[in-house]
Amino acid sequence: MELFEEIRALCAGVAKAAPSLAEAGTKEKNTALLNIAEALVANSDKIIEANKADLASAEKNGVAPHMIDRLALDEKRIKGIADALTELVAQTDPIGAGETWTRPSGITIRAVRVPLGVIGIIFEARPNVTVDAAALCIKTGNATVLRGGKEAINTNIALVSLMKNALSAAGLDPNCVGLIEDTSHEGANILMQMTEYVDVLIPRGSRRLIGAVKAKSKIPVIETGAGNCHLYIDESADLDMAVKIAVNAKCSRPAVCNAIETLLVHEKIADKVLPLIADAMKWYGVEFRCDERSKPYVDGAHEAEEEDFSTEYDDYILAVGVVSGVDEAIEHINKYSTKHSEAIVTRSYENAKKFQSRIDSAAVYVNASTRFTDGGEFGFGAEIGISTQKLHARGPMGLRALTTEKYLIDGNGEIR
Amino acid sequence: MELFEEIRALCAGVAKAAPSLAEAGTKEKNTALLNIAEALVANSDKIIEANKADLASAEKNGVAPHMIDRLALDEKRIKGIADALTELVAQTDPIGAGETWTRPSGITIRAVRVPLGVIGIIFEARPNVTVDAAALCIKTGNATVLRGGKEAINTNIALVSLMKNALSAAGLDPNCVGLIEDTSHEGANILMQMTEYVDVLIPRGSRRLIGAVKAKSKIPVIETGAGNCHLYIDESADLDMAVKIAVNAKCSRPAVCNAIETLLVHEKIADKVLPLIADAMKWYGVEFRCDERSKPYVDGAHEAEEEDFSTEYDDYILAVGVVSGVDEAIEHINKYSTKHSEAIVTRSYENAKKFQSRIDSAAVYVNASTRFTDGGEFGFGAEIGISTQKLHARGPMGLRALTTEKYLIDGNGEIR
Repeated sequence: MELFEEIRALCAGVAKAAPSLAEAGTKEKNTALLNIAEALVANSDKIIEANKADLASAEKNGVAPHMIDRLALDEKRIKGIADALTELVAQTDPIGAGETWTRPSGITIRAVRVPLGVIGIIFEARPNVTVDAAALCIKTGNATVLRGGKEAINTNIALVSLMKNALSAAGLDPNCVGLIEDTSHEGANILMQMTEYVDVLIPRGSRRLIGAVKAKSKIPVIETGAGNCHLYIDESADLDMAVKIAVNAKCSRPAVCNAIETLLVHEKIADKVLPLIADAMKWYGVEFRCDERSKPYVDGAHEAEEEDFSTEYDDYILAVGVVSGVDEAIEHINKYSTKHSEAIVTRSYENAKKFQSRIDSAAVYVNASTRFTDGGEFGFGAEIGISTQKLHARGPMGLRALTTEKYLIDGNGEIR
Repeated sequence: MELFEEIRALCAGVAKAAPSLAEAGTKEKNTALLNIAEALVANSDKIIEANKADLASAEKNGVAPHMIDRLALDEKRIKGIADALTELVAQTDPIGAGETWTRPSGITIRAVRVPLGVIGIIFEARPNVTVDAAALCIKTGNATVLRGGKEAINTNIALVSLMKNALSAAGLDPNCVGLIEDTSHEGANILMQMTEYVDVLIPRGSRRLIGAVKAKSKIPVIETGAGNCHLYIDESADLDMAVKIAVNAKCSRPAVCNAIETLLVHEKIADKVLPLIADAMKWYGVEFRCDERSKPYVDGAHEAEEEDFSTEYDDYILAVGVVSGVDEAIEHINKYSTKHSEAIVTRSYENAKKFQSRIDSAAVYVNASTRFTDGGEFGFGAEIGISTQKLHARGPMGLRALTTEKYLIDGNGEIR
C-alpha cells in the first residue's frame, strides 16, 4: 500500500508538470537536451562511480557477462549518449505542425500535433535507454515516468538527477522526468495501473518484457521489437546477390530485430544456392536448422522442428526451408512471421509485386537486406523502436509516434 | 466448444478472403457498394419482413420503445442506408496513397496506405450499423466479421445475405463479410479472442458495450464515443452568443456524444448569464443540477452531487458550476471530461489560447458549439466514430482510421 501511494504520488507529480512541458517552445526543449549532453560529459566521473556500484552488485549476483556489458558505462559510452542528444537537437520538432481549413459552417479547424502527455517507459538494465527515452520524450513535449531494471538502479538515479538539473537550468519543471526507484515487479505492476496519470506505456527490451507489459497494462501500450524476419530466394534470383543479402541479413548483427531467422529457397535453385550460402556463413559459425527438403544441400545441418520456424533466435542460427514458389513462401511467412520485415530476391516483376502486396509485414523488401528496417536508415532520425502493430504507428517509429493530434476550432458564435 | 469452433471457422474464412479484398481496385469496391445500395432498395420487402419478425420478438420480450424505434426499418430508412452508400462511393479511396523517397544507401522506400486486414465490429440492435460498418470496411479494403445485437438477428441475416450477393456480383469474395449468427455473450467473447484472424475490433454503441469490449478483448480495440463535454462561459463572453451556443450544445440533440453535459460559468457573470440560459432552456424542459454557487441563479435547480459532473446524461439534464476563472475551468474539465469536445465562449485572446492549449481533449472550441465534432462537419465524409483515445486516431475518424501503413522497399542488392 505504501509502495502504491509512493508510485501514485510520483506519477501524479509528473502528470502535474506535463502541461508546462507540452507548452514549452522548441528552443527551451533543445536547451534542456544540450544541458543534459553537457552535464553527462562534465559528470562522467560521478556516473561511472554509480555505475561501478551496479556492476559490482551484478557480478556478485552472477548476472550474465553479455548483460554486464550492456550495463557498463565508460567515458566513451557516455560521450556516445551525449552525442546522440546533440543529433536529436538538430531534428525538427513535430509539435505544433498541422493543417488548417475553414468549413461552410464558418468554423475554422486546425489539426495540430500535440504531445501524448505522460509516457511511461519500462526497460531493462541498459542505462543508455534511460537518457535516450527521456530525451525523445522531452523533444516531443512529453513528460516521462521511467522504470528501469534493478541492475542499473544506481546509474539511473545518477542520470535522472542530472537530467532534472538540466531541465531546471533550461527553465523547465524538473518533475517532467520521474524515476521509479523501486525495482520490484510490484512497482512495475503499479505503474501499469496508473491510467489516471500516464497516457501511454512503451516497454523497451526483450520479447518477454514486452509481452508481459502488453498482457498486464491497463494503460495503452506501444509495442516494439519482436522480429521473426524472413528472406525468400526466388527461382529467378541473381544468386550472387542472394548470397550477399542472406549473409548480411543473418550475420551482420544477429541479435537485432531486423536480422533474418528463416531462409526460404525455391525448389528449383535449392541445390545451387544453399551450398553457396552454407559456405559463406561457415566463417560466422552459423548453425542451420533445415526442413527435409533443404537438409541434403547443407553440410552438417540439424533437422528443423516446427517450432524453429516461429523462433526469434537473435543468434547465429538459421531455419531453412524449401518451397515450391512465391505463393508457398508468402503463405509460410504470413503464418510464422511477427510482421516486422521480410525480403524476396527475384528478377520476376510479377513475383516481386505479389510478394510486396501479399506479405502482411511492416517492411517488405525486394532485392535488399532486411537490415535496413531502422529509423536512421529510413531517414527518420531518432527512433523509439520498430512497431509490429498495425494501429498508431507501424515499422520504424520516429518522433511523430510520440505525438497525437488535437483539433482546435475557432468560431464566431456558430451553432449547428 | 462447438460454438468456439464455429466462430473460429467463420473468422478463419473471412481472414482467408481478406487479401483478395485488400488487393481489389477502387472500381471493384465501389461497384460492390453500388450493388449493395441497389439490392437494399430492390429487396426492401424481404428486409422489412425479416425486420418484422425481430420487432415482434422485441415487443414480446418487453424491449424499451426507444430501442424498438432504433431497430425498426421501413422503406424510407432503407433508402437512407442506400443513399449513404452512394455518398461513400464518391469519397476518395485512401488505399495505395503515400510517399516515396530514395535513401543514400540506394534503397527506394514507398510508404503506402494499406487496409488493416480483418475488422471485427460488435454492435447493438441497429441494423443501419450492419450495412454502414461493412460498407466502410469494403471501401477501405478490409474484410469484416459482424456481431450485432440479438434483437436484430433476422434483419442482420437478411442484410448480410444481400451484401454477400452484391460482393459476388462485383467479382469479390462473398466471404469478405461474415456474420456471427450466435448472439450470446459467449459468442462475442469468443470473437474477442480471435487474435489469429482479426486485426482490430471496433465496438459501436453504448458506453457500457464499449467498456466491456475494451476490458475483455485480446484484439486491439479502436474506442469511440464517450462524450462528457463541457462549455465554459468566460467573464468577457458575448452573452447572447453564450446563450445561443449553450442551448445548441445541450438541446439540439442531447443523446449524441458531442452534446454538452456540464456548463461552467465565470463567477462575475453567473448572475447575468445563468438566468438567461435557464430561461432559454425552459422550453426543452432541461433539468439543472447546480453546485452551491450556481444554484441561486437557476429557478428550481437541483443540487449537484460530485457524480453529476462525471455523468454523460445523454438527456435534457445539465450539470452547472461556477468557477473563479479560466484556470479553474480548465482544471475542472481536465479532471472530469472524457477528452471528447469542450468549448469556451470568450472575447479574451489570452484565455482562448490558454483554453485551447491546456484542455486535453480531441476537439477544443472557441466561440462555437461542441456539436460540430462530427466527420461530416469536419469535412471528412463518412465517419466510423469519434475517437477519445490518443493513439492511432483522435476525434472524428474518417476512412483513413481504417487503414495502416506499410513500407515497400526496392533495392538492387543493397546490404548494410
